[in-house]
Amino acid sequence: MIIIGERINTSRKPMAQAVEERNTAFIQEDAKKQEAAGASFIDVNCGTRLKTELEDFLWLMDVIQEVVSIPLCLDSPDPKVLAAGLSRAKLRPLINSITLEPDRFEVVGPLVAGDAADVVALCMDGTGIPRTTEKVVDNARRLVGQLEGLGVKRASIYLDPMIQPVSTDTEMGLVALASIETIMTTLPGVHTTCGLSNVSYGLPERFLVNRHFLTCAMVKGLDSAIIDPLDRKIMTSIFTTEMVLGRDEYCEAYIDAVREGRIEP
Amino acid sequence: MIIIGERINTSRKPMAQAVEERNTAFIQEDAKKQEAAGASFIDVNCGTRLKTELEDFLWLMDVIQEVVSIPLCLDSPDPKVLAAGLSRAKLRPLINSITLEPDRFEVVGPLVAGDAADVVALCMDGTGIPRTTEKVVDNARRLVGQLEGLGVKRASIYLDPMIQPVSTDTEMGLVALASIETIMTTLPGVHTTCGLSNVSYGLPERFLVNRHFLTCAMVKGLDSAIIDPLDRKIMTSIFTTEMVLGRDEYCEAYIDAVREGRIEP
Repeated sequence: MIIIGERINTSRKPMAQAVEERNTAFIQEDAKKQEAAGASFIDVNCGTRLKTELEDFLWLMDVIQEVVSIPLCLDSPDPKVLAAGLSRAKLRPLINSITLEPDRFEVVGPLVAGDAADVVALCMDGTGIPRTTEKVVDNARRLVGQLEGLGVKRASIYLDPMIQPVSTDTEMGLVALASIETIMTTLPGVHTTCGLSNVSYGLPERFLVNRHFLTCAMVKGLDSAIIDPLDRKIMTSIFTTEMVLGRDEYCEAYIDAVREGRIEP
Repeated sequence: MIIIGERINTSRKPMAQAVEERNTAFIQEDAKKQEAAGASFIDVNCGTRLKTELEDFLWLMDVIQEVVSIPLCLDSPDPKVLAAGLSRAKLRPLINSITLEPDRFEVVGPLVAGDAADVVALCMDGTGIPRTTEKVVDNARRLVGQLEGLGVKRASIYLDPMIQPVSTDTEMGLVALASIETIMTTLPGVHTTCGLSNVSYGLPERFLVNRHFLTCAMVKGLDSAIIDPLDRKIMTSIFTTEMVLGRDEYCEAYIDAVREGRIEP
């Protein structure tokens, strides 16, 4: 699994405070822990810092890049922040995100043109969030087509099916799962990714829903997720599911994780 | 999910003791709890009681049938025990099990002929336990063909893909999952079932492997499992996975289970 570590986000209070106080040690410690726990990218998001987002974002990038050897996932609603971040990145980053919304595609598309970066592509267009498998997959095809038109390779594209809460419509889990399966089989070469918190919105014991959905999605081919790699329960589901799905030779990663106490029984 | 409650098995020491002492209250209490926890069948197995199996089996059936309103799963290596149990059953039982082994098919087949009972059909023949999807599915087809030849309806057949430990061959999880999917899509109308303990043989924290495999198998269409319905962790995986897969209208069963403390967070 390609894990996009989601912890450095100022919607989390300790992170907002650390950014406010320019607490370099706190941010660096967190980033190092995410790398050690298996993250492939470290997401950077300070979108809640409306007035100072650009300055804060570049500061965060600098302090994180000092201490990790994995690339960043540049996560902002503001394309100007993404553009500045792309110039500042030491390693080829993942841009989070592009959509088919004309406003968004026009300004984020040029950033990734010529395969300049990996990109999270949310399967939505100007008509809003899709609620059927057909619409998600249609959006995915159009995104891949338009991105390929800009010279972006399939291996650089992370399609996000935009899972909706099962509490509002019990079909939404199936829609996301069928979308992932169809995308992975009909658009070979791309990645699929998703955040997990949306699926469980409005339900009790949300982490249970998140981790079971993640296992189900991995069965359907999901090969990336935006998660907290320090959450031992989610990581336990990833280690265990990978093994059950034959992706852990000699069961080595699972057995090592148990031995090292990284599994939450 | 069709849950076959596995607790009343004399390979469990407290059960062996209860049978030895003819402890009616202990057995009845356990059976009632399994029914309350959602079991559709109560498995009865006293195969370890070699010398007294038949007598013990009929005693167990009598005491269980006094207190539950769900059918039994008659589970014995000895076809004579199955035959006697079938005559003693108050409700149409599930016979556990038949295989393609000529010795076994010849003696268990007549018990279920004419759709006289539901039957667990292990996907193995005289050549042993299958280790490829092709072989499992081929055995499944032959079992269904031969059972249909005896007048058994597909809805009465519970095919068990005979999951093998991933610790001895990491492909074994995938073989079982692909087998379940192929059986459920190419032999419409049948059920699939399985025990879980085999998949995790030789690994640490086995219950983690069992519950993650169960979720994966449910994604592939598994609609029955031989489990301990009093194991809240396994039941948590069932409730949560059913909901994520759109099989829990209004998320009602999940929310009720949380409210009633039947979920292990």
